[in-house]
Amino acid sequence: MIEKVIAYIDDNKKKNEERLFEFLKIPSISTEPQRKGDVRKAAEWVNNFFANCGVESKSVDTPGHPCIIADTGPVEGAPTVLVYGHFDVQPTGDEKLWKSPPFTPTVRDGICYARGSADDKGQVLTHMLAVEAWKKAAGKLPIRVKFLIEGEEEISSPNLEKIIRENKDRLACSYVALSDTPKFDDKQPAITYGTKGLVYKEFIITGPKQNLHSGSYGGTLTNPGNAACAIIASLRDKDNRVTIPGFYDDIRPLSEQEKKQMRELPFDEEGYRKGMGVSELTGEKGYSTIERRWARPTLDINGIIGGFTGEGASTVIPAKMTVKVSMRLVPNQDPQKISKAFDETVRKACPPGVTIEILNHGACAAYVAPLDSSGMRAATAAIEKGYGKKPFFTREGGTLPILPMFKQVLGADSLMLGFCHPDCNAHGPNEFFALSDLHHGAKTAAHFIGLLATGK
Amino acid sequence: MIEKVIAYIDDNKKKNEERLFEFLKIPSISTEPQRKGDVRKAAEWVNNFFANCGVESKSVDTPGHPCIIADTGPVEGAPTVLVYGHFDVQPTGDEKLWKSPPFTPTVRDGICYARGSADDKGQVLTHMLAVEAWKKAAGKLPIRVKFLIEGEEEISSPNLEKIIRENKDRLACSYVALSDTPKFDDKQPAITYGTKGLVYKEFIITGPKQNLHSGSYGGTLTNPGNAACAIIASLRDKDNRVTIPGFYDDIRPLSEQEKKQMRELPFDEEGYRKGMGVSELTGEKGYSTIERRWARPTLDINGIIGGFTGEGASTVIPAKMTVKVSMRLVPNQDPQKISKAFDETVRKACPPGVTIEILNHGACAAYVAPLDSSGMRAATAAIEKGYGKKPFFTREGGTLPILPMFKQVLGADSLMLGFCHPDCNAHGPNEFFALSDLHHGAKTAAHFIGLLATGK
Repeated sequence: MIEKVIAYIDDNKKKNEERLFEFLKIPSISTEPQRKGDVRKAAEWVNNFFANCGVESKSVDTPGHPCIIADTGPVEGAPTVLVYGHFDVQPTGDEKLWKSPPFTPTVRDGICYARGSADDKGQVLTHMLAVEAWKKAAGKLPIRVKFLIEGEEEISSPNLEKIIRENKDRLACSYVALSDTPKFDDKQPAITYGTKGLVYKEFIITGPKQNLHSGSYGGTLTNPGNAACAIIASLRDKDNRVTIPGFYDDIRPLSEQEKKQMRELPFDEEGYRKGMGVSELTGEKGYSTIERRWARPTLDINGIIGGFTGEGASTVIPAKMTVKVSMRLVPNQDPQKISKAFDETVRKACPPGVTIEILNHGACAAYVAPLDSSGMRAATAAIEKGYGKKPFFTREGGTLPILPMFKQVLGADSLMLGFCHPDCNAHGPNEFFALSDLHHGAKTAAHFIGLLATGK
Repeated sequence: MIEKVIAYIDDNKKKNEERLFEFLKIPSISTEPQRKGDVRKAAEWVNNFFANCGVESKSVDTPGHPCIIADTGPVEGAPTVLVYGHFDVQPTGDEKLWKSPPFTPTVRDGICYARGSADDKGQVLTHMLAVEAWKKAAGKLPIRVKFLIEGEEEISSPNLEKIIRENKDRLACSYVALSDTPKFDDKQPAITYGTKGLVYKEFIITGPKQNLHSGSYGGTLTNPGNAACAIIASLRDKDNRVTIPGFYDDIRPLSEQEKKQMRELPFDEEGYRKGMGVSELTGEKGYSTIERRWARPTLDINGIIGGFTGEGASTVIPAKMTVKVSMRLVPNQDPQKISKAFDETVRKACPPGVTIEILNHGACAAYVAPLDSSGMRAATAAIEKGYGKKPFFTREGGTLPILPMFKQVLGADSLMLGFCHPDCNAHGPNEFFALSDLHHGAKTAAHFIGLLATGK
């Protein structure tokens, strides 16, 4: 039966690509209030996809953006997989940095460039195409596949936990499968078994009631710009270690086996460095690049704005300075504990004469999956068949807030099958997804369904 | 004769106010390239003013914005005064912070609100009105008055030195008079006898070739945001002293007399603090607020921008971070020496893995005028007559690049007659100039002409 399903996917390449482009044309930026209608449009697109291939599907409203829950129906004695993904996307940033418009999917050399192509529309679509292929080519599925595809992943999924808790029975599953992580390199597929957590903060330093003349007033008040920089600088030491008290206390150290696995991966440091376009790799003292990427916590500025930022010079003391800063966490750092320690440290570092306001933009724990489950074996074999290559087992510096939540609420571990390039510019300009990965990914997802059914 | 001149000014209050509004309606922002035509329009307005009262005047082109040179003609045996001012203005900043539009002069309670009202259109206009009054009421002037009114003051006068050197004979004078400084408080006129210098820098920290996903890449490269903050934070110590090597070496200390004068000024620290809207006054350890404002150098952030600065959260590592920072200098700090030391210090503080580019937006020395000249005596008496109050002698934290240049090229000391409020929001939103100061200022300027002629 699987041969027919795979043949169906091969026969529909063109049609599948066209549907990818359709999906990518919707500017579903969840972080921008004026895009609310577009996020809804993306939800409807997903809903229609399932309706068209005879899968029960419905849109679930939230106080923010809606999500889609779909279900192929029960199969006696067979396991259930819940496929998770998201149809919302990151903001475009400066559109001038895009070679083609972010919401006009453009193919160059077999690569499709568009915002959301890799993160996550192209990747979640592979699973949707696999289910369609099973339905069309085999008439039915050998296991039960459910979908939970949301519209708020890029804003830290504020309403998802409530939906999962409220639909706990409807979403019950043996495993969660998702494709929102990258391959190891452009030719080497990977299964990601761990992700970092995240605590995202914004703080606003307010000084004088308005921008002031730096000559008339300078030297007599605390400048919010200097204050913000002093605070940020105080959060890391010269070895690039975070100075927040207790920050490293709860970390579960890497096992010797994991360290060895990481050491032995054919990681191209020079290619990685060049890919980012930096002169040298830097980071926390005492750890390898891979360890820092996958298994060490970080603290990074995401954005700063304040004062005069136009062309030329204006001699003002800024009335305020806004800083966005986030920390990536590793097992077993507690996001709430880190969040609290951050707030205390930053408030303490704030000099007199200015006030500080701290906003929270999400907090989430890290996640690590067991490597010895039947689901992990099926996923491994599916990739080998879909790509013709054994996957590498990797961890990821990014955050999928949903993973610890699935474990907690549904009791299910997650299988992360990565189909996009690691340098796919997920949150930057010129995000891309290879069309070959759309096809290989769909076939892998189809095999995964078949293999999980046989229990092999 | 002076009585007639003063009566003329009193009789023309309404007309003079209307001309102020006309002048303020021109959005002559010299720092914004698209405003070039408006800066030229302001030059023409000044030129027409002089033409209408029979004063020889011409517009002088530069590679940037034009300036106006005017001359009432020689008077045998009498001194010559060169009035300096500028018709360009600061950018408006966020227009939402203005209670009335910045280029729609709006009077509330006798106060005219508009960009450029105090800095410097309203103030330079007082001298123009005084000359007009002498011409119309007395038929001629008892001294020679020249004008040099430029359009590039707010961009650090890049072409003015060349014009002054090329027109050295035409601009020759006994004194320079200018009104681009404030009164001591809203009721107390002042003569400012010293200004600070300025070194204005912009530096751009560049890391990865584009914004990167902070999860996928964080911990392996230098974040330009963290780097910029570390650099800035390193430039000041915990006592708010600037750490640039040699920064304080050449400073001429305040004389005991100046210290005493500053101590005895009825400076309302609490009112000053409230005016800025800050919770406490801060600054370099070991100096009073007045000393820090007028006689100690500063280093202030003027603006920072980089990374994600929109609403909500985006987990990027910024590709670059741009910082505008300026230092105010005091006598005898050498701007070139300070500029070089700043560059060296900042480059040295820049961490590995990012590059730094430094741009210069002007450098200028501080200036202090002698207190015992005939010009200073005439200015003092003129204010006493114009305002009915003896002026205070103050220094200023702001910078007038023109002052050291006049001293050097024309050999003339400058007399700074301040007519605007000290909290006039010169570079911020809701800049204002009191209409009463327009009238008192014009009368003071008229008296100054009369008093300098009599040599008293």
